[in-house]
Amino acid sequence: MSTSWLNEVKWDEHGLVPVIAQDAASGEVLMFAWMNRDALERTAQGGEAIYWSRSRRKLWHKGEESGHTQKVLEMRIDCDNDVILIKIEQTGGIACHTGRRSCFYQRYDSESWQEVDPVLKDPKEIYK
Amino acid sequence: MSTSWLNEVKWDEHGLVPVIAQDAASGEVLMFAWMNRDALERTAQGGEAIYWSRSRRKLWHKGEESGHTQKVLEMRIDCDNDVILIKIEQTGGIACHTGRRSCFYQRYDSESWQEVDPVLKDPKEIYK
Repeated sequence: MSTSWLNEVKWDEHGLVPVIAQDAASGEVLMFAWMNRDALERTAQGGEAIYWSRSRRKLWHKGEESGHTQKVLEMRIDCDNDVILIKIEQTGGIACHTGRRSCFYQRYDSESWQEVDPVLKDPKEIYK
Repeated sequence: MSTSWLNEVKWDEHGLVPVIAQDAASGEVLMFAWMNRDALERTAQGGEAIYWSRSRRKLWHKGEESGHTQKVLEMRIDCDNDVILIKIEQTGGIACHTGRRSCFYQRYDSESWQEVDPVLKDPKEIYK
């Protein structure tokens, strides 16, 4: 296994890289998270998104509790090699822990953030 | 002017928030950058993307040198209030300093990052 592609990533001072998860079919931005080197390597190997949870300080296989795993169809890196974009198929059509399709459900309007997208499934049903 | 919406943003330890810039029409993710409170307020007021340049440590009105400004049509914030997504019209159709449409022009393939998108304009022509 070559790991030179992992060395090309410019990890931040915490050893992390920001990751944007985009729906491969619709183009909708579903969520934003972080990966460390191990998470990125496992994501590439396994084909499902594995992040680094900064709050829990451990690897986080997205969907391990909710079942809402993310199949990774494509990975890209930006011009500075310090941000990753993954194009995914979102199992269950729900990426957000609030039960919404996307985490970006609050829209700026008239100097406030308004919730504009519906909850598709009660989080109590997702995380039971 | 109400600033409570700015207070709702969870700024990181450097007073910054990550920002994803997405083409409003095509859905393509064009770039990723950072804003501080001042940058976000000015972006909301002026309707063009203003970022915080971490390398130059100053406000950066995107396009101030290249002319490739970004008209902001919509701003969203995520479930944790710590990531912003802006939907933009990209002037000139070029967001990347390399002269490409998007900064995410390197695709992972067989354990390497491959440049897969064309340079639309020579950076020497953009930044002259």
